[in-house]
Amino acid sequence: MNFIENGTVTSPKGFKAAGVVGGVKPSNTTKRDIMMIASDIPCTAAAVFTKNLVKSSAIEVTKKNISNGIAQAVIANSGNANTCNADGIEKAERMCELAAENLGIDKNDVIVASTGVIGQILPIEPFERAVPEIAALMSENGGTDAAEAIMTTDTVKKEAAVSVEIGGKNVTIGAVAKGSGMIHINMGTMLSFVTTDAAISSEMLRAALCEAVEVSYNMVSVDGDTSTNDTLAILANGVAGNEEITTRSADYTAFTQALTALCKMMAKKLAADGEGATKLMVCTVTGAKTVADAKGAAKAVICSSLVKAAIFGSDANWGRVLCALGYSGCDIDVTKVDVAFSSAAGEIYVCKNGAGIDFSEEKAKEILLEKEIVIKVVLNDGDGEAEAYGCDLTYDYVKINGDYRT
Amino acid sequence: MNFIENGTVTSPKGFKAAGVVGGVKPSNTTKRDIMMIASDIPCTAAAVFTKNLVKSSAIEVTKKNISNGIAQAVIANSGNANTCNADGIEKAERMCELAAENLGIDKNDVIVASTGVIGQILPIEPFERAVPEIAALMSENGGTDAAEAIMTTDTVKKEAAVSVEIGGKNVTIGAVAKGSGMIHINMGTMLSFVTTDAAISSEMLRAALCEAVEVSYNMVSVDGDTSTNDTLAILANGVAGNEEITTRSADYTAFTQALTALCKMMAKKLAADGEGATKLMVCTVTGAKTVADAKGAAKAVICSSLVKAAIFGSDANWGRVLCALGYSGCDIDVTKVDVAFSSAAGEIYVCKNGAGIDFSEEKAKEILLEKEIVIKVVLNDGDGEAEAYGCDLTYDYVKINGDYRT
Repeated sequence: MNFIENGTVTSPKGFKAAGVVGGVKPSNTTKRDIMMIASDIPCTAAAVFTKNLVKSSAIEVTKKNISNGIAQAVIANSGNANTCNADGIEKAERMCELAAENLGIDKNDVIVASTGVIGQILPIEPFERAVPEIAALMSENGGTDAAEAIMTTDTVKKEAAVSVEIGGKNVTIGAVAKGSGMIHINMGTMLSFVTTDAAISSEMLRAALCEAVEVSYNMVSVDGDTSTNDTLAILANGVAGNEEITTRSADYTAFTQALTALCKMMAKKLAADGEGATKLMVCTVTGAKTVADAKGAAKAVICSSLVKAAIFGSDANWGRVLCALGYSGCDIDVTKVDVAFSSAAGEIYVCKNGAGIDFSEEKAKEILLEKEIVIKVVLNDGDGEAEAYGCDLTYDYVKINGDYRT
Repeated sequence: MNFIENGTVTSPKGFKAAGVVGGVKPSNTTKRDIMMIASDIPCTAAAVFTKNLVKSSAIEVTKKNISNGIAQAVIANSGNANTCNADGIEKAERMCELAAENLGIDKNDVIVASTGVIGQILPIEPFERAVPEIAALMSENGGTDAAEAIMTTDTVKKEAAVSVEIGGKNVTIGAVAKGSGMIHINMGTMLSFVTTDAAISSEMLRAALCEAVEVSYNMVSVDGDTSTNDTLAILANGVAGNEEITTRSADYTAFTQALTALCKMMAKKLAADGEGATKLMVCTVTGAKTVADAKGAAKAVICSSLVKAAIFGSDANWGRVLCALGYSGCDIDVTKVDVAFSSAAGEIYVCKNGAGIDFSEEKAKEILLEKEIVIKVVLNDGDGEAEAYGCDLTYDYVKINGDYRT
């Protein structure tokens, strides 16, 4: 399994994409904000969505369209979430129709997604104008433009691809995502689309997606707010020519491992570019009684505003890590907990058996001044392990979110 | 029931207090940081503590000392939490001994509490020096100095008192508290001490405290971090001369109502002075299926970083309120939800039946520029009501917490 240089959603064979400046927000005249991804032939498909009761109308339409396990294209926009609007379903349906008409496919095979401000009517005119243009631009080099078109407060495009040999064939899996704020455990992203040329049944595709999500997108938190629009969809068109994966075979395992590696990479990209973030924060928990305890503990640490602010300040305030472990609700013996901070600059233990130990503040500072910080929690109480991804809490998070709608 | 002007923990009869500059943090040479509160005679007593598994040693000692329902004094410090230290119990016990020796009472009748940095050894020398001084200064006017001595990043002292007639006698209840950061649902404070001259059995005192806490301290969140040191203790010395409250009588109800009003006032003070806060944010939920749903919904709204940042920016981003309601886990019909913002400048509805409505952005801005903002959520689905207290998320929260230990 290898990551592909400059990999994106059009790296797998038989996929095209494009993104244009549609002007979904009237004030936007420069950033791509509407995109499509399409396969040359129909795909097996699977998707997971936000658990928020308040859901984008786009999600309702996508759920219906994907219920038969088949899809062929994605249409998505940034700038407006199409959520909490009386005419939301109608608008989402129209987006699918426009995509289908211009791509020459069935409108029930379109996945639709929106991201942006909640509660503002989605203007349909930008789509009427832009979709024919996008259809004309669809190309095998369009993945990057599609990645740009779903960005909101993201500061970098999020895309990657991996290749893996399955049944003697070279299979590629590619992904784009947008994240930034309103990111929390359980679909810690707003939108992500994954493509693959693997041949895999929709049931096995769904199983692989769920396995991968559990340890990647579901372990990311930026700010504790679960979005109303979170959508992660995967399309598999079978063009790689491998024998179709229909059971939990060795091929299934190889595919799922590659998909998981890709999703973990995307999860780290999402966390590192959290709104206002200056640092990626990874919490690894080992020695937990169970995997569930390890996950809960890791999530509590990366979600703590106080830990996040301390990491921003490069302050080795490990007491806040203990505090978060203590309220995590997990079965932890606090008298057995060891904590270390590590980064490219080294590793330093700051707590053993739940109590502080002497450590060099100078060395700790040096470690915490790096851009990728690992908070290592050793519970010494079993074999459960987990890893969660977050970012620091900064002035810019507050600035970005103090006046988001304008 | 009336609030007393300049009321504090020494407003009830028979209580004295004092606070001095002890230098618990070597760098502190100007702020009072050690205090005692004492009753002239033994009191019935009750207390509730943090639910964090990681607990201050002070809490372990207090739990033991208060287990018989009797206490006579409080000793507390700021600047060091005495949490996650190998010698924590020994130090907390020594604080009780010093208080007892100098006040001439039993060391098992002392409530001890600490607040400050976690995981640094508590120096005992400042207490050896300061406690005799405090004992000499104890007075009926000392409540305010005691309130100062427990402040950490608090910017204002938090104290209040109410008077209520019970059984023909004038009963007073007073309180001091410190809050600021690491404040979350379920004991949303770090330290608070309540005194009363009411005569009330320790069982009834405990019952009244639990009732009051449930709708006040337990409905405050500043940053979602549950502290390791949260302690709320109440002492009742009976000096008011009312017939002792020993059952759930009309007197019990009158006492509990007054205590609840006092605790709600303190909860608002804690929320309004949350770290970096510029605004008090109150979320009122009505029309919920159950009180539990109303509470859950109100808490989700005041805990949302995105709602908090929007309130800081005076941005009527009600979609974030809907989003928080949606992930609250409560039984809510999102198609029935109405939302309004209100303040001293008026009230404006921004969402009806779960969808946006036209509203004056100008008027909304005017309302949100005030210092006390009410987010009014009407669920139109039952009779459950609740109110939760929080504050905005600001640059200063990040600044304060980016480098707290120095």
